[in-house]
Amino acid sequence: TPIAIIIRNSGHNSGDYDALKDLYRPGHADWAWEAKYGLRDHRGGGRSSGRETAGRVAAGAVAKVFLSSCGINVRAWTAAAAGIEAPGPGQTGFDPDEAERNPLRVPCKKTADQITAKLEELRAAGDSAGGIAACSISGLPAGLGEPVFDKLGALLGHAVLSIGGCKGIEFGAGFAAAGSTGSANNDAPAFPPGALNSGYPGGQKSVPNGSAKGVLNGGSFKTNNSGGMLGGISNGMEVFFRAAFKPTASVAAEQSTVDRNGAPRQISVQGRHDICIVPRAVPVVEAMSSLVIADLLLMQRSVAL
Amino acid sequence: TPIAIIIRNSGHNSGDYDALKDLYRPGHADWAWEAKYGLRDHRGGGRSSGRETAGRVAAGAVAKVFLSSCGINVRAWTAAAAGIEAPGPGQTGFDPDEAERNPLRVPCKKTADQITAKLEELRAAGDSAGGIAACSISGLPAGLGEPVFDKLGALLGHAVLSIGGCKGIEFGAGFAAAGSTGSANNDAPAFPPGALNSGYPGGQKSVPNGSAKGVLNGGSFKTNNSGGMLGGISNGMEVFFRAAFKPTASVAAEQSTVDRNGAPRQISVQGRHDICIVPRAVPVVEAMSSLVIADLLLMQRSVAL
Amino acid sequence: TPIAIIIRNSGHNSGDYDALKDLYRPGHADWAWEAKYGLRDHRGGGRSSGRETAGRVAAGAVAKVFLSSCGINVRAWTAAAAGIEAPGPGQTGFDPDEAERNPLRVPCKKTADQITAKLEELRAAGDSAGGIAACSISGLPAGLGEPVFDKLGALLGHAVLSIGGCKGIEFGAGFAAAGSTGSANNDAPAFPPGALNSGYPGGQKSVPNGSAKGVLNGGSFKTNNSGGMLGGISNGMEVFFRAAFKPTASVAAEQSTVDRNGAPRQISVQGRHDICIVPRAVPVVEAMSSLVIADLLLMQRSVAL
Amino acid sequence: TPIAIIIRNSGHNSGDYDALKDLYRPGHADWAWEAKYGLRDHRGGGRSSGRETAGRVAAGAVAKVFLSSCGINVRAWTAAAAGIEAPGPGQTGFDPDEAERNPLRVPCKKTADQITAKLEELRAAGDSAGGIAACSISGLPAGLGEPVFDKLGALLGHAVLSIGGCKGIEFGAGFAAAGSTGSANNDAPAFPPGALNSGYPGGQKSVPNGSAKGVLNGGSFKTNNSGGMLGGISNGMEVFFRAAFKPTASVAAEQSTVDRNGAPRQISVQGRHDICIVPRAVPVVEAMSSLVIADLLLMQRSVAL
Repeated sequence: TPIAIIIRNSGHNSGDYDALKDLYRPGHADWAWEAKYGLRDHRGGGRSSGRETAGRVAAGAVAKVFLSSCGINVRAWTAAAAGIEAPGPGQTGFDPDEAERNPLRVPCKKTADQITAKLEELRAAGDSAGGIAACSISGLPAGLGEPVFDKLGALLGHAVLSIGGCKGIEFGAGFAAAGSTGSANNDAPAFPPGALNSGYPGGQKSVPNGSAKGVLNGGSFKTNNSGGMLGGISNGMEVFFRAAFKPTASVAAEQSTVDRNGAPRQISVQGRHDICIVPRAVPVVEAMSSLVIADLLLMQRSVAL
Repeated sequence: TPIAIIIRNSGHNSGDYDALKDLYRPGHADWAWEAKYGLRDHRGGGRSSGRETAGRVAAGAVAKVFLSSCGINVRAWTAAAAGIEAPGPGQTGFDPDEAERNPLRVPCKKTADQITAKLEELRAAGDSAGGIAACSISGLPAGLGEPVFDKLGALLGHAVLSIGGCKGIEFGAGFAAAGSTGSANNDAPAFPPGALNSGYPGGQKSVPNGSAKGVLNGGSFKTNNSGGMLGGISNGMEVFFRAAFKPTASVAAEQSTVDRNGAPRQISVQGRHDICIVPRAVPVVEAMSSLVIADLLLMQRSVAL
Repeated sequence: TPIAIIIRNSGHNSGDYDALKDLYRPGHADWAWEAKYGLRDHRGGGRSSGRETAGRVAAGAVAKVFLSSCGINVRAWTAAAAGIEAPGPGQTGFDPDEAERNPLRVPCKKTADQITAKLEELRAAGDSAGGIAACSISGLPAGLGEPVFDKLGALLGHAVLSIGGCKGIEFGAGFAAAGSTGSANNDAPAFPPGALNSGYPGGQKSVPNGSAKGVLNGGSFKTNNSGGMLGGISNGMEVFFRAAFKPTASVAAEQSTVDRNGAPRQISVQGRHDICIVPRAVPVVEAMSSLVIADLLLMQRSVAL
Repeated sequence: TPIAIIIRNSGHNSGDYDALKDLYRPGHADWAWEAKYGLRDHRGGGRSSGRETAGRVAAGAVAKVFLSSCGINVRAWTAAAAGIEAPGPGQTGFDPDEAERNPLRVPCKKTADQITAKLEELRAAGDSAGGIAACSISGLPAGLGEPVFDKLGALLGHAVLSIGGCKGIEFGAGFAAAGSTGSANNDAPAFPPGALNSGYPGGQKSVPNGSAKGVLNGGSFKTNNSGGMLGGISNGMEVFFRAAFKPTASVAAEQSTVDRNGAPRQISVQGRHDICIVPRAVPVVEAMSSLVIADLLLMQRSVAL
C-alpha cells in the first residue's frame, strides 16, 4: 500500500514577504516562474522554496530502510564550503563520522572550524557562500543501471541536479578525468579469486535479493576513478560523486534588480536564510540517491532468473 | 507518424575482437555488463559501444529542425582536450564558427593546433586523452523546465550524462559557483522596457508557438552565472553547460587486467579508437540537448492558454 | 501547482470486520490480494474497497471544471439494474435530468420505480443485483485519441475497467455491432457545409483552445454506431459507452467459502452494503472519463501548430 | 538487448486507392484522422490500417515464448461471427484444437461451416460481418494485476480495445453478470488442502520464477464468473474474456458519403478486404494479451521477497 506523508508547515509567516510582491530577487526563481506560469506566490516561493525538499528527505528515509536491508549504505557530507575544501576519502583527516557531529556536516573537525569562521565573516558582510556535497554509496552490487539512456550516472545526475541550487555533478574523478590520460585514468581490474560474494562472473545471480551478493569484497579494481560505474552500470566498487551548490541567493547586502514594471530597484533580502545551503543539501542528496538506487534494485530483480 | 531510421553497420569486423573474448578491458563496460546480464558480446560491445550514439544524433537532427523553426539554436564544441583549454564565449580568440572548420571542433584555431600536437604525442605513446564539451542553447524562451523533479538542468543532465564516457556536467558558473559568494554569483535582473518579444511579465504567452516570443532581447540579466535557468526553469538567457568526458579507455599501451577466471593478464587494445572522444561527443551533446528542449517546448504548449 | 486532496474516513468501524479475519468472502478481492501481497487488511479491504473511488471522484470534479470551460459535458447514468433496462438516448421515456432526481440515477421515473421494487425484493432475500452504467460525452472535438495503442476507446476502457466491479465495456453499438453487417453498422458521413465550427477539414485547428472548435454541429454522421470514435480518434459526434457492473459481492444470504486453513465455512456478510453499486458507480464513471478526456485535450494542444 | 523486427510491406499497390483521395469512407478513420492531423495518407491508411497489427503479433510471439517458459498458455478463437455463436468452454461441441484447423478459427467444425456459408452470402451481397473473439489464459498464477488503476482487466481491456475494430470487451460473465444476482454470480472458494503448488496462503511466494507456482490445481473456485480476477488481481483460475469486433467497414455495396468539400457522393470500396476481421483479430488478441501478462509477471517479480 502506498505510504502517504503529510508535513504541515507551522513556521511560515506570509507577511515577511510583503516587500517582495513586485520585486524579482536576484538568483531566485521569481522571474522564471512568472514567465512560465503567468503568476507566482511571492510569500515563500511555493515549490521553488527549499521547503520542498522535506518531502524528498521523508521519502528517502523509507528507501534507506529498504537499502539497509540489502546491505547498502548511502552517506553524503559537505566536501567544501566558502571556498575551503575538506579532506576526502583516503586523505589525511577524513573522518565520515565527524560529519554527523558538526552542524556543517564536514568530515574533518579542523576544516569545519575554518569554514565556520569564514561563514561568520560572510554573514557579517551580508553575503553568502556556495559549496560541494560529496556522496558515497557502499555495498552496492554490480549490475545496476541501464546501458543506454538510464545509465546509473544519468539517473543519479537527474535526481541530484533536481535539488534547488545544484549547478553541477561529477562522478569518480569527474572533471579531473577530462584532463587525464587513459593509462592513468583506467581502473585496472584485479579481482582475486572469490572476490564476489556470489562467485564471479556473477551474471544475474549477482543481484541481491535481501543480501549483498555481487559486491566486490576488497579492492577488486586497483583504483576507482570511474566512481563505481562502467558503461552506466555499477561495477561493485563504491559509487562516488560530488555535487556543486551555488551560494545562497538571498543575501542581506543590497543588490540591484527590477520590479514587475521593469523599473530599477535596490533589494536587501532579510529572513532566516542559511549562509550556505550545502549542510542542508547533504540529507537531500542522500535521499535522492537512495530513491534512485532503490528503484534500480527493484527493476533488476524483475529480470533476475 | 513516427519516424523510423535504420543505420546498417557495414564497417564491423567481428574477428578484430577475438583476443578480448575472455578479457575485461580496463575502463570498459565489459565486467559490469557481464555482472548485469550474465553474458556480453565481446565483438564490439553491443550497446556499450560508441556506435550506439549514431541513433541519438539521427534523432537529434530531426529535433533540431523543429527547434530551428522556433528560432532556437543548439551549438556544442570542444572546450578542452588533453588538458588544454580553449577560450570560451566572451574570451579573446573564441570563434564558434571555427569549431565547424577543424576536425577537433575547437572554437579557436591556435588552441586546436596545440591540442592536435599534444594528441599526436599521446598517440605515439599509445595513450589517450579526455576533455570537455561545451554547449550553448540560444533563442530559448523563458518558462521551459518543470519546477521540482524535472528541472531544466536535471533533464539536460540526465540526457548528457547518458552519453558514454561522460563523467560530469556543470551549468553556468558550475563548480566555480561553489567557491563563489551570493553577491558575486547572483545575476542581477536588468530588463529594459520591452525586453521580451511578448512584453513582460510574459506569463504563458511567453512560450513560442512557432516564433521566438519570450526570448530576452539584449542583456536582460547583467550576468549569466546561472547558465540560463533559475529554479529549474529557463529564464530567457542563453543556456550554457560544460560536460566532462574521460580519456578513451582503449589504449595501445600495455595495461594489467584479469581474465574471466580471475587470472592476471596484460592487455593492449588495438583498433580504430579515437585518441580523444570529445570531438565525436560534440554532435551527441547537441543531439541530446535538442531532444530535451523539443520535448519541453511541446509540453509547455499543452498548458498554454 | 499540484492539487492535493485529503479525505479523512470518519465512518469506519474496524470491529465490524472481526468475523472476516480468517475467511475469504466470495466475490471479494480477499484471496487474490493475499496471494499477491502475502497479507491483507480484513478491516475494510484497504484499496480493494469502494471507498477508494472517493479520490477518483474528487479528481474528476477538477477535470470537469476544465472540460466545462472547453464546452465539453460528461454525463453518466444507470442504464440497467436488477435485469431491468431503462430507455436510452432517442428512446421514449429517456430523460437525462431525471437521473439527477432519483437516487438510483435512472433516466426514467417509471423504470426507476420498477428497479426500486425489484431491489427491495432482493434485499429481503439477502441478495444483490448488478447493472449497467451508460456515459455520454458531448461537445468533444474531433481529433482526440492516439491512432495505435492509446485509442480513445482503449484509454476510456482502461479507466472505466479500473473501477471495482466493472466487468465489461462497449462503445457505440458495442456487442450488438458484432452481430451486425457493414452496410448496417457504418455511419454515413453527411457533413453539411459549415458543419464544423472551424470549417472542415479542420486539421489541427479543430482542437479547442478554450472554445469548442471542431465539434460537429448537427447530425454530421447519419448514425452514431461508432460511439463517436473512428480509428481510435474522436470524430466530433457524441462519445457513448456502456459499462457492466457485477452484483454486489457482499450478500446477507449464507454462502459457502473456505477459511485461511482451507476448511469449508459458511459466511453471511453483514454491513451497510448497497444492493446494487451502479448508482454509486455513475459518478465514478463520469470522473474517470473526465480525467481521460482532459489528458487527451492537453496532449493534443501540445502538437497544435 | 532490445529485439528489433522489420516487416517490409511488399504487397502494397498505392494506385488502388486513387479513387479514395477526396472521399471519406464510411466506418473508416479517414475523417477523424484528417481532423486530428490535418492530413492523411489515403493510400492504405497508414497506421489506421490493419497492417499495423503485424508488429503486435510479432512482438506477442516473443512474449509467448517467455510465458510458455512459465507454464502460461494464451489461446484465442472466434466465438461468434455473422451473428452465429460457436459453443464455448464447457459446452457441447467446443474443441479448441479445431480453431487451429479451420481458417475462421472457430472451435467447432459444424459452426465453422455455418459461418462460412453465411459469410459467402454476405460476400455475394457486397456486405460484411462482425463477430466476437474469445481468449483464455491458463496457467496464470494468482497475484498479477495492480489493485487500483492498473487492474488486470483494465490492462487487458486497454490492450484489446486498442485493436482496430474492437468495440467492446467483457470478462468472465461480463454483461450477463450485470443482469445476475450476488448469490448466483459469486464464485465460491473451495480450495482443497494443497490446492496451490506453493501451499496457500501463497503470499508473494505464489509468483512464479520460471515455474508455475501459485496456479490453482483443480477447481479451486466452484465457478469462474469472475473470469479469473478479483479486485483487479488474478486469482489463479483461468482468465477469460470476449471482445466484440464491428463488421468490416470496407464493403463493395454502394454507400453514401461526402467528399472533402462536403458534397454528397456514392462510394463502393473495392479491394482484398476480409468479409469478417475476427479470424484475423484472433492472433492479435493473443499477442496483446501475452504482452500484458509478460509485463505483469516481470513487475511482480520485482517485489518478490
